Amino acid sequence: MGGILDGMPSLVKIDREEIQRELDRRAPGRRADTSQRKEPDRIEILSGLSEEGLTLGSPIGFIVRNQDARSQDYGGYTNRFRPNHADFTYSAKYGIHAFAGGGRASARATVSWVAGGAFCRQWLRELGVKVEAHYIATNNVEEARNNGDSTGGLVEGLITGLPVGIGEPLFDKLHARLGMAMMSINGVKGFEYGDGFGAAEMLGSEAADFMVPGINGGVGFKSNHSGGILGGISNGMPINFRVAFKPTPTIMRPLETVDVNNEPTIINPAGRHDPCIAIRGAVVVEAMALLTIADMMRIAGYGSTYARMKDK
Amino acid sequence: MGGILDGMPSLVKIDREEIQRELDRRAPGRRADTSQRKEPDRIEILSGLSEEGLTLGSPIGFIVRNQDARSQDYGGYTNRFRPNHADFTYSAKYGIHAFAGGGRASARATVSWVAGGAFCRQWLRELGVKVEAHYIATNNVEEARNNGDSTGGLVEGLITGLPVGIGEPLFDKLHARLGMAMMSINGVKGFEYGDGFGAAEMLGSEAADFMVPGINGGVGFKSNHSGGILGGISNGMPINFRVAFKPTPTIMRPLETVDVNNEPTIINPAGRHDPCIAIRGAVVVEAMALLTIADMMRIAGYGSTYARMKDK
Amino acid sequence: MGGILDGMPSLVKIDREEIQRELDRRAPGRRADTSQRKEPDRIEILSGLSEEGLTLGSPIGFIVRNQDARSQDYGGYTNRFRPNHADFTYSAKYGIHAFAGGGRASARATVSWVAGGAFCRQWLRELGVKVEAHYIATNNVEEARNNGDSTGGLVEGLITGLPVGIGEPLFDKLHARLGMAMMSINGVKGFEYGDGFGAAEMLGSEAADFMVPGINGGVGFKSNHSGGILGGISNGMPINFRVAFKPTPTIMRPLETVDVNNEPTIINPAGRHDPCIAIRGAVVVEAMALLTIADMMRIAGYGSTYARMKDK
Amino acid sequence: MGGILDGMPSLVKIDREEIQRELDRRAPGRRADTSQRKEPDRIEILSGLSEEGLTLGSPIGFIVRNQDARSQDYGGYTNRFRPNHADFTYSAKYGIHAFAGGGRASARATVSWVAGGAFCRQWLRELGVKVEAHYIATNNVEEARNNGDSTGGLVEGLITGLPVGIGEPLFDKLHARLGMAMMSINGVKGFEYGDGFGAAEMLGSEAADFMVPGINGGVGFKSNHSGGILGGISNGMPINFRVAFKPTPTIMRPLETVDVNNEPTIINPAGRHDPCIAIRGAVVVEAMALLTIADMMRIAGYGSTYARMKDK
Repeated sequence: MGGILDGMPSLVKIDREEIQRELDRRAPGRRADTSQRKEPDRIEILSGLSEEGLTLGSPIGFIVRNQDARSQDYGGYTNRFRPNHADFTYSAKYGIHAFAGGGRASARATVSWVAGGAFCRQWLRELGVKVEAHYIATNNVEEARNNGDSTGGLVEGLITGLPVGIGEPLFDKLHARLGMAMMSINGVKGFEYGDGFGAAEMLGSEAADFMVPGINGGVGFKSNHSGGILGGISNGMPINFRVAFKPTPTIMRPLETVDVNNEPTIINPAGRHDPCIAIRGAVVVEAMALLTIADMMRIAGYGSTYARMKDK
Repeated sequence: MGGILDGMPSLVKIDREEIQRELDRRAPGRRADTSQRKEPDRIEILSGLSEEGLTLGSPIGFIVRNQDARSQDYGGYTNRFRPNHADFTYSAKYGIHAFAGGGRASARATVSWVAGGAFCRQWLRELGVKVEAHYIATNNVEEARNNGDSTGGLVEGLITGLPVGIGEPLFDKLHARLGMAMMSINGVKGFEYGDGFGAAEMLGSEAADFMVPGINGGVGFKSNHSGGILGGISNGMPINFRVAFKPTPTIMRPLETVDVNNEPTIINPAGRHDPCIAIRGAVVVEAMALLTIADMMRIAGYGSTYARMKDK
Repeated sequence: MGGILDGMPSLVKIDREEIQRELDRRAPGRRADTSQRKEPDRIEILSGLSEEGLTLGSPIGFIVRNQDARSQDYGGYTNRFRPNHADFTYSAKYGIHAFAGGGRASARATVSWVAGGAFCRQWLRELGVKVEAHYIATNNVEEARNNGDSTGGLVEGLITGLPVGIGEPLFDKLHARLGMAMMSINGVKGFEYGDGFGAAEMLGSEAADFMVPGINGGVGFKSNHSGGILGGISNGMPINFRVAFKPTPTIMRPLETVDVNNEPTIINPAGRHDPCIAIRGAVVVEAMALLTIADMMRIAGYGSTYARMKDK
Repeated sequence: MGGILDGMPSLVKIDREEIQRELDRRAPGRRADTSQRKEPDRIEILSGLSEEGLTLGSPIGFIVRNQDARSQDYGGYTNRFRPNHADFTYSAKYGIHAFAGGGRASARATVSWVAGGAFCRQWLRELGVKVEAHYIATNNVEEARNNGDSTGGLVEGLITGLPVGIGEPLFDKLHARLGMAMMSINGVKGFEYGDGFGAAEMLGSEAADFMVPGINGGVGFKSNHSGGILGGISNGMPINFRVAFKPTPTIMRPLETVDVNNEPTIINPAGRHDPCIAIRGAVVVEAMALLTIADMMRIAGYGSTYARMKDK
């Protein structure tokens, strides 16, 4: 796995050990309720940093190597479409498919996003912006695991310290970009922010965020039904959002399916799989939020050539 | 209002009257539970069509004129930030704001999307693809109106006839693009597809779409928890999704807020406003889905130069 | 003709009369050596400006209407491919072609670029940036016209006052974007900047721009072989470039060609055509340079949300 | 050095040895008139290929490692701006600059483009498209080298076998994209195609490409002044273009300049540098043309999902 992070401003001090620690958070085998693979994801940064660890303003290239990806764990599925996986659609679209793990539809690919997000976090911290996400249990994960089953889950995200004015008004609304990023994560079925789906059942009189004179000459809001965004643009309040993950599709039971010749067959899954992808998904949600916020701040001119000339 | 629709393939037969009828569906004043403005939106197509009404493959430019936009309906709010509106964030971001109606944050702007979607529908119909959306009541709209209040609502969308293979696997996943389009609509707070947020509470054994040999040499699915998309790519099943709209923020009650000088003030709204934006929102959801699906089919090579050369 | 200019920062004071004057410069019939059509191009600005003429930061939509486009001037060519025109390639690519004037391959379309450039000029002027271009005669235009012939020509452009640091280092090099913009103009066959093609015959010792301490703490250059750009990024020196235009392809002589059925035929051109497109092309070159420079300054953060927050 | 090539269609058979041979063509030390470094560029392909060497339709990631980049060859310039180099503009734009070789302004970076182009060539070959470029001497290179000097040069490119219809009519004209790609190469000062700058001095009657019925029901052209492109779209004729390279800026003579503190200083260059960058530049020109043509064919729908479904 590897990636290239473009658009990072120059002169951001990067703590390489912190990047590694963020990767470690995503790695499986850290808790009983995630996959038992022990993947020592080690990041190698190839470009974009000075010897002192300052960003140069050029793309940051990196590789994440992993010693523990046992391809035999996946090999048994060759030429058979796993239900609720991309095997079938990839095969149809491309006429060829790497059935073994590690492709673009694999959760392994998210390691690059986590690495990219970790770089962004260090820039955003300088600007006072903080991004965090956590898993919300919706089901009994250990019971599902013991039954060879899996379960879905929720992840809640929170962005604080974002200045007013981030987000573009039409096709790059802040929540639209955030939602798109979340929907790009494997297994995500829904996204909402602020009052979210609950807003559909509310009255206007219940959802009003009255405004009052705020501190330091700024405005204040008496509530935050809007979730920190008005018209696609941050209003200075915390941004909160929720992401719904489906259950891990690979469960330890016979799965009825067809093979590449459209003949009926059964898959009896083996291997190591998270019983609830939302648990490790929280780290990926955080990474995608970091990448999105950093990109939107870049679009708004933070870290730009102008900003550097002005701040000089 | 106006727009330019780029990317439409050539040789699509356009029925101009049908375009107008689609605009009429969006127009207010058609039912008791929408705004009472009688806007005769008339579309004028400026470019992109031959005299016979065939698309030329060049951008389709159009203007939609409206005689009934009474700016005085909005004028009273000048220099005061309406709660839950973009007035404040636009003013902060740009240092200037057109407080009168008609700006980018106005629902009026969606008329261009509806027009664009109407063109796309005529192409998609040739390909056997059908897109529809409808409003799902979640509250008593007429009661809210009589109380000077408003209410949120849901819109459900359905896409049928889409061939296998539409959507890109990484950053242009079909549902990610669809979700982004929906989140770009004014007042939308959430998006889900397939099992959606319900998936977060399901077990893997409840959510499996088993595969079987299908008709015509294709594969079949015994259920559709995936909502027609696997790994970001259409699998041939219907695509279903839901969109949550917040209540109309402008209600007929005193609204506590501040003005551009950060002084406390009260807005007493007047004018004509939909008590539930989701009702007319269904037409906009349909339009955005049409635009998205057409764009993703274009990216997948439908209507391309290659397709024309091959079909010749 | 019309267009939408997106990305213009807010709070730029727009002089509408100046926009009109720029369009008048492009219009034919102003000098003996251009086309004799008298086109009163009148611009109508539809959006993006406040009543006081300040930009709102939203897209500027405009229409340019023309009363004098006599379609019969072009009608005679229907179904016959004019040599050195796009008639053939458009027909092949799209399976349909509007043979009458006014399509995308028509020089008429450049009126939108001129309008867009005129808006950009007013912003750039605030920043001290100046863009100009002029025609350089390479042939005897009036003699060619009297012979029913046409001639090519050169246009030279000059950009002054650009701050250091504009242009991106890899795929959006300033001269690459400038060159692409110029190559997008109808009839352009070549682009060079600084020493240009002459550099191919020079020695390194002849082309060195030695550096010296400059005024105001900045650096100075003893010469400008580099044409104001180093590594794709402006260095503070004037940017100079040249653009080669081919002769007007429609000349008053029998032109051997084929029709849409691939049958040989002859076109005897009539109508009003510039004997040298480079003459009016200078205005278009200027417009495209204005659009490019404004866009690159926008990318570098000028006029951004950050800039506004900082300058406040 | 490394890169990620996205957009390559699936099922293209890749010959890895041929990729390596293309890199070897770019490597210095192969001829007396290029740099004497002996860089064994070895490519390692990390993703995107099946075990049988077929493309999967996913991004092709690769790394090119080099053992011979002696950083001390560059180290002497630290904190001093080499004339006609990007040292100054990078430092100004980013506030930090890696003065040692290997950055984005280094010719070393072109190794990724050459690798990417080599993949594209193998796809284009399947489609019958051929791209080649060669150096045209304009000066006495060996004499310049012996004098510690350098010289500019020309590169001529030729694209044959391209089907009709490649290129987009407005902002992605085939020659505009080709020109932009060429202007992105280090040291390029000019681009022209077809008659190029010569067209500026021609009469319309000299530049006409008369059309005649051609073979196989297609049209034919009696000449090719247009250089294979009409209105930005390929017309089936060969595409020819020329690129002007400036002399290598680093010459073996004292170079007057300033340091990062704006103090005057002298650089006495050492190290190994090509006396004429155009010689090895020809390989880069070829690579950029391959990348551009492949991309434009992709945009035209070649290799698309539709194409695969249709060809199945």
